[in-house]
Amino acid sequence: MVKYQIIIEYEGTNFAGWQRQSNAISIQELIEESIAQLTQEKVVVHAAGRTDAGVHALGQVAHFSVSKEMPSNLMQKGLNHFLARKGITITSCSFASEDFHARFSAKKRSYRYIILNREAPSALDHKRAWHIYKALDLNKLQEAAKHLIGTHDFTSFRAKSCQAHSPIKTIDLINIYRHEDKIIFDLKATSFLHHMVRNIVGSLVLVGLSKLESSSIKNILAAKDRSQAGPTAPPHGLYFTKVEY
Amino acid sequence: MVKYQIIIEYEGTNFAGWQRQSNAISIQELIEESIAQLTQEKVVVHAAGRTDAGVHALGQVAHFSVSKEMPSNLMQKGLNHFLARKGITITSCSFASEDFHARFSAKKRSYRYIILNREAPSALDHKRAWHIYKALDLNKLQEAAKHLIGTHDFTSFRAKSCQAHSPIKTIDLINIYRHEDKIIFDLKATSFLHHMVRNIVGSLVLVGLSKLESSSIKNILAAKDRSQAGPTAPPHGLYFTKVEY
Repeated sequence: MVKYQIIIEYEGTNFAGWQRQSNAISIQELIEESIAQLTQEKVVVHAAGRTDAGVHALGQVAHFSVSKEMPSNLMQKGLNHFLARKGITITSCSFASEDFHARFSAKKRSYRYIILNREAPSALDHKRAWHIYKALDLNKLQEAAKHLIGTHDFTSFRAKSCQAHSPIKTIDLINIYRHEDKIIFDLKATSFLHHMVRNIVGSLVLVGLSKLESSSIKNILAAKDRSQAGPTAPPHGLYFTKVEY
Repeated sequence: MVKYQIIIEYEGTNFAGWQRQSNAISIQELIEESIAQLTQEKVVVHAAGRTDAGVHALGQVAHFSVSKEMPSNLMQKGLNHFLARKGITITSCSFASEDFHARFSAKKRSYRYIILNREAPSALDHKRAWHIYKALDLNKLQEAAKHLIGTHDFTSFRAKSCQAHSPIKTIDLINIYRHEDKIIFDLKATSFLHHMVRNIVGSLVLVGLSKLESSSIKNILAAKDRSQAGPTAPPHGLYFTKVEY
C-alpha cells in the first residue's frame, strides 16, 4: 500500500461537516469519492480533526492509502479535477511514511476565528465570519484571553458531545488582532476539545461587549461547568488553518 | 428633496453588474427597490462608477434623493433590512449636500485586483480571485507597472464599448504586492476607461509569466492599439474599493 498525505482547503457552508453522514453530504465523502473516481479504489480518508457543519478549512490534513502508486502531483491534480467546483481543493499532496497518521501524529493544531465587527452586515463574508454589530473592546478580549493560555481543565468550554478522554488541554497561543473591520482570533494547541474554540470565542465576546469582566474568564475556567461560560460562537466564523507534525 | 450618500459593498457574482438591465438582475435595481420598499418612493440611484457583471465592490458610492427626510442611520438600517441575504449591504449612509453627485463629484477612484497564484484551485475564493496556477514574477509585474503611472493615452487598454470622451487618463498609483498565496494590485486614478483595470492586469500578467518583457508595456501604451495589449482579466478578481470626494 502507498500512503498519501494531503492538505485540504474547504468552504464548509454547504457540508454537514468533515465526517461521513448517512443523510447529508460531508467533506470526507466527497474526497473519498474523488479518490475512488481517480484510482478505482475504495478507501477511508483519515483527517487530523473533524470539523462541524459550516466550519471552513485552510489547512486540514488527511491521509489515505491506495494499492497502486501514482506520482503525488498527479494524485493532487486528479483529485482536484473530480472535486472541481465543489468547494473543496487539495492544496498539497505528498507521500507519507508508513507510520504517519493525520490525527495521531499531529503535534499542533491551529484554528482561526473571524468576527466581522461593524454595524452593517456583510455582503462578501456572510458565511465566512460571525457578524457582531456592537463594537468589541480589543484590549479586553486580549486581557481575558491571557487566562486561557497554558494547561487547564477546559470542562467549561467543552461540548456535551465531546468524546475526549480528558478535559485537560494546553493552549500555546491565543493571538487576537484587528484587521480592517474584522477581529481575528488565532489559537494553537496540541488538540482542542469539541467546540472548545467556539466556546472560548463565545465567552470572550461577552468580555469584549463589557457584559463580563476580563477576570471572570478565570472564574469560568475554575468552575469546570459549561453553564458558566458564554454561548457557542457560530460555526461559519471558524477556520481550521494548520496542522504541524 | 433630501439627498443621501451611501457606501455600498457587494458580491458581484450573481448580478449582471451595477446598471439596471431589462432582462437581468442588477445591483442598482435591488437598491432602488429597497428604497421604494422603505420610503414608498420611486427613485434613481446614481453610482460613482458602473461595475460589470461579476465585479465586486467594497466601497462603491451612490446618491439618491427622496422627498421625506429620515435619519441617515435609520435609512441605512432600513435599506439593509430589505437587502438582507442578497449580497448587497450599505456600509455607510449620510446626508449629502444639494450639489453632490456620486459620479461627477468623485475626485479619486480605487480598484483592487486579486490573483490567486498557486497550483491548486481555490475552494474559498473561487468567485473572488483570478486563479493563475503558474508562478508570477512579482518584480517583473512591479517593473512593468511603472510604465503606466502618470498621464497617458490608454487606448491600448480601453474596451471597444468605452464611452469616455478621451482615452487620456492619469494613474496615480499601482501598488502590487504578495499576501500569502495571492498577488494584489491596488490602482488609483481620478477615473478609468471601461475595462481599463482588467486590461492592465491582463497585460501585466503576460509580463509576470515572462511571455512579454517589462519594457514592452511602454510600447503597448505607445501603440494606442487595443490588439497590442494582453487579454481582459476576468471580472471576478476585481473590486471597486474606494471613492474619494
